[in-house]
Amino acid sequence: MQPKEVIFVDYSLLWLDWKPKRALPAYTKRIAGMPATRQGKAAQRELMAGLKAMGAETMLCGKVADGPSIKLTESLGSGEKITLKRSGDGMELIGSGIALLYGVFHLLRHLALGEDYPEWDSSPAYAIRMLDHWDNADGSIERGYSGRSFFFRDGKPFFSERTRDYVRLLASCGLNACCINNVNVHANALKLLTGSYQRELKRIAVCLGEYGVSLWLSVSFSSPIELGGLETADPLDPRVRQWWKDTCGKLFASIPNLAGFLVKADSEGRPGPHSYGRTQAEGANMLAEAVSPFGGKILWRCFVYNCTQDWRDTKTDRASAQCDHFAPLDGQFRGNVYLQIKNGPVDFQIREPVSPLLGHLEHTASMVEFQIAQEYTGQQKHVCYLLPMFREVLDFHMEHKPEHDTVKENISAVCAVSNTGDDYNWTGHDLAAANLFGFGLLAWDPSADPEEIAREWSILTFGDDPVVTRTVTDILMNSRRVYEKYTVPLGIGWMCVPGNHYGPSPDGYEYDRWGTYHRATHKEIGVERGPDGTGYTEQYSPRLAAMYASAENCPEELLLFFHRLPYDYRMKDGRTLLQRIYDDHFEGYEEAQAMSDAWNELRDKLDPEVYARVQDRFREQLRCAKEWRDVINTWLYRLSLIPDEKGRKIYM
Amino acid sequence: MQPKEVIFVDYSLLWLDWKPKRALPAYTKRIAGMPATRQGKAAQRELMAGLKAMGAETMLCGKVADGPSIKLTESLGSGEKITLKRSGDGMELIGSGIALLYGVFHLLRHLALGEDYPEWDSSPAYAIRMLDHWDNADGSIERGYSGRSFFFRDGKPFFSERTRDYVRLLASCGLNACCINNVNVHANALKLLTGSYQRELKRIAVCLGEYGVSLWLSVSFSSPIELGGLETADPLDPRVRQWWKDTCGKLFASIPNLAGFLVKADSEGRPGPHSYGRTQAEGANMLAEAVSPFGGKILWRCFVYNCTQDWRDTKTDRASAQCDHFAPLDGQFRGNVYLQIKNGPVDFQIREPVSPLLGHLEHTASMVEFQIAQEYTGQQKHVCYLLPMFREVLDFHMEHKPEHDTVKENISAVCAVSNTGDDYNWTGHDLAAANLFGFGLLAWDPSADPEEIAREWSILTFGDDPVVTRTVTDILMNSRRVYEKYTVPLGIGWMCVPGNHYGPSPDGYEYDRWGTYHRATHKEIGVERGPDGTGYTEQYSPRLAAMYASAENCPEELLLFFHRLPYDYRMKDGRTLLQRIYDDHFEGYEEAQAMSDAWNELRDKLDPEVYARVQDRFREQLRCAKEWRDVINTWLYRLSLIPDEKGRKIYM
Repeated sequence: MQPKEVIFVDYSLLWLDWKPKRALPAYTKRIAGMPATRQGKAAQRELMAGLKAMGAETMLCGKVADGPSIKLTESLGSGEKITLKRSGDGMELIGSGIALLYGVFHLLRHLALGEDYPEWDSSPAYAIRMLDHWDNADGSIERGYSGRSFFFRDGKPFFSERTRDYVRLLASCGLNACCINNVNVHANALKLLTGSYQRELKRIAVCLGEYGVSLWLSVSFSSPIELGGLETADPLDPRVRQWWKDTCGKLFASIPNLAGFLVKADSEGRPGPHSYGRTQAEGANMLAEAVSPFGGKILWRCFVYNCTQDWRDTKTDRASAQCDHFAPLDGQFRGNVYLQIKNGPVDFQIREPVSPLLGHLEHTASMVEFQIAQEYTGQQKHVCYLLPMFREVLDFHMEHKPEHDTVKENISAVCAVSNTGDDYNWTGHDLAAANLFGFGLLAWDPSADPEEIAREWSILTFGDDPVVTRTVTDILMNSRRVYEKYTVPLGIGWMCVPGNHYGPSPDGYEYDRWGTYHRATHKEIGVERGPDGTGYTEQYSPRLAAMYASAENCPEELLLFFHRLPYDYRMKDGRTLLQRIYDDHFEGYEEAQAMSDAWNELRDKLDPEVYARVQDRFREQLRCAKEWRDVINTWLYRLSLIPDEKGRKIYM
Repeated sequence: MQPKEVIFVDYSLLWLDWKPKRALPAYTKRIAGMPATRQGKAAQRELMAGLKAMGAETMLCGKVADGPSIKLTESLGSGEKITLKRSGDGMELIGSGIALLYGVFHLLRHLALGEDYPEWDSSPAYAIRMLDHWDNADGSIERGYSGRSFFFRDGKPFFSERTRDYVRLLASCGLNACCINNVNVHANALKLLTGSYQRELKRIAVCLGEYGVSLWLSVSFSSPIELGGLETADPLDPRVRQWWKDTCGKLFASIPNLAGFLVKADSEGRPGPHSYGRTQAEGANMLAEAVSPFGGKILWRCFVYNCTQDWRDTKTDRASAQCDHFAPLDGQFRGNVYLQIKNGPVDFQIREPVSPLLGHLEHTASMVEFQIAQEYTGQQKHVCYLLPMFREVLDFHMEHKPEHDTVKENISAVCAVSNTGDDYNWTGHDLAAANLFGFGLLAWDPSADPEEIAREWSILTFGDDPVVTRTVTDILMNSRRVYEKYTVPLGIGWMCVPGNHYGPSPDGYEYDRWGTYHRATHKEIGVERGPDGTGYTEQYSPRLAAMYASAENCPEELLLFFHRLPYDYRMKDGRTLLQRIYDDHFEGYEEAQAMSDAWNELRDKLDPEVYARVQDRFREQLRCAKEWRDVINTWLYRLSLIPDEKGRKIYM
């Protein structure tokens, strides 16, 4: 028997591991044009290397080529807008240096996908398309599931070949901003501000800049105390303001390509303006003023809530906190402040409604924050492709105005908490790389199709075997719904093990201080968030508020986010609420099993190492999915003593 | 107004802070006798120093005194037996050096208590009266609530003045053995065996020896692999046996006063003979043979159970494990092996039945293991005087034989996990020192009265104000029952936060691997351990088995340890089970409040620092007691939806 032909994957390159192509258009033989900028030259270099990897015999031809070619026409001052157009038998790319780089990656991708003349005329939807790293100075990563940091080691910023590999990955999917340190700024990370690590930071910044990626730093609001020796960080204190101005002056002068600061203030124990009786706007504006002379921006997180709630307190609703704090401040922020708003009102759960704050900022720049680090979505041990969720959020119509009031229209920037680390395959789970790639494409074009992105990613990663492509795309597209089915029911959230946020613990957060309760009794479960409950629904526009406030009209996948309901509540299809949850959990596990089986079918078509790594992850996913299924079902059965109508096994 | 006269307490001396006495018998002016041994000299020194601290003007008079005296008559070869008898107008102490030391402390204590001629003729009930330290080489203490280790620092054994202070405390209450390192032997602690820290260990050993306290070490069963470079630790392998013999030869030669090893094998991930298909007896005997030439002993822990149980498995009962593993091996252990058995079948809960294994060893030496480190009993933030519990255990009649079958008669030794650390006051909570003192007195004489011990400890510590003595004694005597009332109901155990074991989490261990489940539904709670359940009750003698197996006859405080019962089960007094639990929790909190109030009444009678420290602890106890009360009540109310009959506040 002939050994099967298998395409080996260099997972250290992710989707930039260009595979040899049998047929390439003739124009791939020649590259014309002579970009002058550093980024333009990088575009040319990437094009050359990419085509060679695909098997083309490409020549650089100077300004004009003799025959069909790819012509790189660098135009200054056109920002990130890129045009790819057919030109005779060749292609021409027109744009600034960075735009050419985006164009080159677009061209390479589409050649890899088998398209001959991938015309494209595009500008990114947002000027800031960002990844936030929760990397600590000691090299650990908060909520990191892919090894250690490649930005920090032994308390200091760290530059290596991986920095360059990483920025290539970012630019290749259109990302252009990167905050390299954790929003919880501790220990040595504090000192990033005051130039202690200027040499290391500069090296990283220069490397990022070559591929158009700006550098951002998370800073501590109380830095004037921690670093400046002041006894206050009051944003209205002149000494504090001067300290920030002086500090920014030195910092921006020494670090090229530094774009601004990300700030987690008054949140989960972090210092902030509230400590001094100042508003969030006063805090943010003070920093914004300090970075303004250098064109800097402040990304101000809206994750402000009472994290020492008494569980006995049924009035306070954590979901309401962001709007309560920030909606009244609309218009009070300086123009270079962006409010960074998590996609949902709580914290990156597998199912939440869209944050109502995303509909309340008419005069303030805002950005949505997603999380591709799978903190609550399987920690890169479970496959969970998040793009469909992100699209739902971006497409969501806030309905305060009849038109142009979707999230994607309301925001000015977009970011995601990164899922990367120093693991060989970057993202722990090989399939989690699809979230990194896809987030980039969606950040460029929020109307991109998640399924098409999945398909592209699969081909770029594994080659173009149609069975592989179909199977991988199906696994990815099913994965979020499957994860949701076997884990937390109908938007109720949490029920995970406190602290590590992995695996089931239905009562884990129930008597704790985090404001996340289900208050289940043997009759009912959930928190009522309508006008008769906490009133959270009132933060939406009238039609949405009414829809969410009514159990009948509320989307069923969010039913237990918005309502407290009896177990025998009838769902639209006639099943009881409880039976629906039982069914979801039995089905979710079976569907996870089916995904794993589908992967196993690819054994002979995949690089054996990739195959085995993903198989290992599926083994853990199934173990954990079974635990979720049985714990949630048993817990609800013990509470209700209502058996499964289909007589499946629920343990005691 | 006159300032109140307050007795200052040097808590760094605990009960050895002898207070000035107005009247002392005339014989305290002279000490006669010339002890020759190191321990005898220590006795003389302690006597001199103690009398001086009490205000006596004492002289050393050589062999014979001219006038009433305390005569120290050293008799070699009489072991620990001590006689104090009146001799004319003086007292004579007769015994070996160490016995004289015990006698001196007895005399000093009773003089401090106001007794003029405290005659005593006594031998300790057990030859080994031991404290086990769970101190790690890095200086941390597993389940330590009083600061860091004073035996280890920076990965090495550590000698300081505190070593001497500590051994004085031990000897003063009759303790004579001390295992200085954690039964979970990790990192540098492994190397204690092979002489790396010989100098440091020897220094500690010599210091302990002067006060008659033998040194013990916890060792890892797989040391031949970890230290010896062998690929096995199979106890029947000749190389393994030889390695242990060689290692012990060197170790015992270099460390005077080393008495033997404590071993946690095949327990919670620790290595042991089961890994090699050998029995616990084969493992223990191999070590016993190795230490035998040096008069050494092996203390072999019986804490062997399946700690990776599937919660779905309702057949396995962790409570049965110790008897299952060890009862069949009775008679197979060498004479210098002691089986170390926790007082209950599970793990130091506030209420457990007595371990049935304590009735099954006719031909094997055994020792009971208590825990004065308050792991599950309030972590030295809550006052919880444990002596009444220890007396219950020691007095418990196993009833396999009509007579002489109480625990205290069945065991040959006794130990407790120590509650000490490098905190100034030794035990974190000032009142927790009563457990250290009391354990020593009870280990000497298991029929000592816990209330009398509490009274003595109070007077020795705080002076003899009768109001203080009454209040402190009452607080101590009530404390265990109060703690039990507001925490875990009726012997069911656990319900604490996993990992740290502090504070309530009713479902915390429910879906975990530790074999500790309540399996509560909205109708019933508990695990049935009678013959129709797991059969655990059958490990007791017939009358006890029948008593425990019947819900009506089972002691009510253990009802939910032994039985699965509906919430409306009727208790003997007519209340429902649920109402009893509600009542206990409301009352428990109120009683904790009353204890705190009683302490507050002592404000003007106590050293202000001691008063404030204990008041701080009561504040935390009340905070936590309220949390326990409300979480347990709410959790049961949510499950049952049965309201409190008395209409007290149960939160939703």
